Amino acid sequence: MTNCERWQSYELTLDGPTNGNPFMDVEFAAIFNYGTDHIHVRGFYDGNGKYKVRFMPKSVGIWNVKTISNVDELNDYQTSFTCTPAQDNNHGPVQVSGKTHFTYEDGTPYLPFGTTAYAWVFQDSKTQEKTLSTLKENSFNKIRMTAFPKYYNYNTQEPAQYPFAGSPTHTTGIFNDDSWQVDPQKTGFDYSTFNPSYFQHLEQRIKDLDALGIQADLILFHPYDSWGFARMGQAMDKHYIQYIVARLASYKNIWWSLANEYDLMAQLGQKPLSAWDFIGKTVHQEDPSGHLLSIHNFYDPPVHKGTTKNWFDYTKPWITHLSIQSDNVFFVPKWLDDFQKPIIFDECRYEGNIEFGWGDNSAKGMVDSFYRIVLRGGYATHGETYIDKPNTTRPIWWAHGGILRGESQKRITYLKQLLATNGFNYVNPMAVQGPHWELAVGESPDKQHVFAYIGDNQPEFEIFDFLPKDNIYSAQVIDTWNMTSTKLNERIDKNHYFHIPRKPYQAILLTKIN
Amino acid sequence: MTNCERWQSYELTLDGPTNGNPFMDVEFAAIFNYGTDHIHVRGFYDGNGKYKVRFMPKSVGIWNVKTISNVDELNDYQTSFTCTPAQDNNHGPVQVSGKTHFTYEDGTPYLPFGTTAYAWVFQDSKTQEKTLSTLKENSFNKIRMTAFPKYYNYNTQEPAQYPFAGSPTHTTGIFNDDSWQVDPQKTGFDYSTFNPSYFQHLEQRIKDLDALGIQADLILFHPYDSWGFARMGQAMDKHYIQYIVARLASYKNIWWSLANEYDLMAQLGQKPLSAWDFIGKTVHQEDPSGHLLSIHNFYDPPVHKGTTKNWFDYTKPWITHLSIQSDNVFFVPKWLDDFQKPIIFDECRYEGNIEFGWGDNSAKGMVDSFYRIVLRGGYATHGETYIDKPNTTRPIWWAHGGILRGESQKRITYLKQLLATNGFNYVNPMAVQGPHWELAVGESPDKQHVFAYIGDNQPEFEIFDFLPKDNIYSAQVIDTWNMTSTKLNERIDKNHYFHIPRKPYQAILLTKIN
Repeated sequence: MTNCERWQSYELTLDGPTNGNPFMDVEFAAIFNYGTDHIHVRGFYDGNGKYKVRFMPKSVGIWNVKTISNVDELNDYQTSFTCTPAQDNNHGPVQVSGKTHFTYEDGTPYLPFGTTAYAWVFQDSKTQEKTLSTLKENSFNKIRMTAFPKYYNYNTQEPAQYPFAGSPTHTTGIFNDDSWQVDPQKTGFDYSTFNPSYFQHLEQRIKDLDALGIQADLILFHPYDSWGFARMGQAMDKHYIQYIVARLASYKNIWWSLANEYDLMAQLGQKPLSAWDFIGKTVHQEDPSGHLLSIHNFYDPPVHKGTTKNWFDYTKPWITHLSIQSDNVFFVPKWLDDFQKPIIFDECRYEGNIEFGWGDNSAKGMVDSFYRIVLRGGYATHGETYIDKPNTTRPIWWAHGGILRGESQKRITYLKQLLATNGFNYVNPMAVQGPHWELAVGESPDKQHVFAYIGDNQPEFEIFDFLPKDNIYSAQVIDTWNMTSTKLNERIDKNHYFHIPRKPYQAILLTKIN
Repeated sequence: MTNCERWQSYELTLDGPTNGNPFMDVEFAAIFNYGTDHIHVRGFYDGNGKYKVRFMPKSVGIWNVKTISNVDELNDYQTSFTCTPAQDNNHGPVQVSGKTHFTYEDGTPYLPFGTTAYAWVFQDSKTQEKTLSTLKENSFNKIRMTAFPKYYNYNTQEPAQYPFAGSPTHTTGIFNDDSWQVDPQKTGFDYSTFNPSYFQHLEQRIKDLDALGIQADLILFHPYDSWGFARMGQAMDKHYIQYIVARLASYKNIWWSLANEYDLMAQLGQKPLSAWDFIGKTVHQEDPSGHLLSIHNFYDPPVHKGTTKNWFDYTKPWITHLSIQSDNVFFVPKWLDDFQKPIIFDECRYEGNIEFGWGDNSAKGMVDSFYRIVLRGGYATHGETYIDKPNTTRPIWWAHGGILRGESQKRITYLKQLLATNGFNYVNPMAVQGPHWELAVGESPDKQHVFAYIGDNQPEFEIFDFLPKDNIYSAQVIDTWNMTSTKLNERIDKNHYFHIPRKPYQAILLTKIN
């Protein structure tokens, strides 16, 4: 009997028909039986007559597998495997914990410190390898990336492969059409026929990320589309979702992001706002492993920048967390309260020097957002957009991956380490309304530590009147930019003032001593 | 016949009764006649049997004056004076111009660059003189100040005089009471009897400000009250308004601010939110000169900091402009559009080092707010809160005046000068929504200049696609912190990229060359 480690990908491969369009004609699935659990898992055609079904077992012991198909040679095949305990470095998939936070399934703390390299898997091999080595050198534990190739400013190269059979009929450019559902004849692609090699490559990259301990926050649809993939219509969307979920759901580090900037897709005429309920439910139903699932906005909510648009309805039961674009970092505790779900600022402006407002944040600004968001109980995602000239062909991390040129990533690592070494399995935001609203303050779940970020403000005298009564703390001044910690020779409690040097980007880390 | 310069204060003094309570018992007013204009102006009792009526003539020529009183000796006195043309340095009062901006009444541009020293007139003489000399050395042209003494953190000294007869019966502290209208017995003050000496002093300081070309944005009520002045009840509020408006409305540099933090007054039980309509209408009706009139909030609107409170209804016809407390600087163009009135950010956090979030902004942050607000078509007000230790008795500019210790005031002057020397009689905000929302961009009314603030962002390549078609500009890079201007050797138009050095707090000032 074969073995499969808990939370790793079990794969069963059978030979089947190659005639017709196997992607459309052949139904193939398996029931995974464990005790009284009977889990239905869709399989997929991997080309060359190979039919596969993959599954991530969550329980240690013997699993019995039985296939179902409308094709005799694929139907009623039976086998078993033993699910062995997880090894030390395997903590399982990430899941929501305690409503607004995350852990790995084995209970190990997981605080998302993500980055963004949307189209990295579609670059040349050398750039892809560089991306992996850059990720290895840094401490990001999540990456936002697209399942489809990307067409956008600074990212106009055609990919080496396409997800579907066919090739583009037109010059590169945002694909325009009059209807929500494009005529495939116009685009040159047959959306009913997948290109297995394209997905095999994507899979390999997701496994490479898993080996580095990085979650793949995979974006299923996006508006930066030159090939009609953003407007295939509901039937082909469903076909694509069934296929990609069947291929990838067994990888423990997969997260589903239904879309990047779904509301921009509506504005561009690619997919109506009403499309996402069906798409979300389909992903949720198809995924036997219950991976994290969200959707990402373009428009900021009414609190900012003059727009009156609203966010997606993140209260829907199949949405596991908020994946928002916003640089309003004050509301995090309120939103956590409102939604009772984790909140990830998956775009809060990128460190870079480009001509766009979302991509010309300073490194200091990027780090500032991390502290302000994370110490208020949310999570932030990094991105980097440095160019050498306008319309450059040099890889830019945010789109292509490659190397990081910025200064924020080290400081983000420093914050991550400070939290990890001071008991912050997650951050409980502290109520500091009133005169202290300019601080971002979080408490460790064990209540032994309080972490207050001062940012670019410059109080030289503070009284932390929000501290719990009777608690006494020792204090370190954290220089978030220079990444140093200096002991403050004062005992801090809620009733007494203390002195802080005047300097930007400082935080105070308190440790309870009574 | 006496002369009075246009927009200066004409004063008529008559002798009258001293028995009883002249402030309550004696009605005294005058009609100022000029051609077909007959303007009713309330007079006031100045103590020692002296009854006065003051008036700011707006028309050059002969004015006939006739008094009205319920006391014979003050009734039907007739006199005349000649209103002479304004001298060169007298531009008249400031008024709203073109809906969202200001000018002096003679048409001279006026862009408010205000500061804040709430209780400066209640400090010792030496501190008051220092305040005036500090103002003289700087370029602020408006100051926010209170008509009543102030009791608040860092400002707990009793004033030398009180506005009413009596003296406090209780230890200093925020005055608490169960009702909106306090029993004067409890406070030790007779609100029906004014102390003329108190008001004479206030008047002198307003005249001193006028001599420096500074508008006195006088706050009539405020919550930092230790004497019951914040809860006198409607009848005594009216009596006070009639008196103070009669005394001060003839000074051309007076602005009326009904209250500081009126919504905090409601929360403290001092004055209900419903009180302000009566107060505002009363000030408006009593003032024959139509001075600028607004009211200032405590709570930020729903766009910020999690509060759901709203602003005052600034659409009321007697409100001339918005006087807001907010550090949300993105919405200015939208709010200008919504309200069609000028918007002054009369509190957008102060430069300082104190323990409160509103008073620990850096100098860079203060200057940043000025650029972001002013180049979006609004106006900003400075304040400074540097202490040497908690609970210090050293004067703090924001409360006491005295000297400025900060670094923002010079940079504010530099901005003011840049605007004055580049045709910005006011600033037309330019629509830079979309990818350029992080910029604050204004155009001069003559369309010869565009001023784009980049702030702490760091684009190294820009394309100003919001510029008018066919316009070509020369450009200077303004270092807003170091106060330098460097010519950019590029011609700028809407179609071409240009390079900017990477550095925080820069702005680009364009001058049309075609």
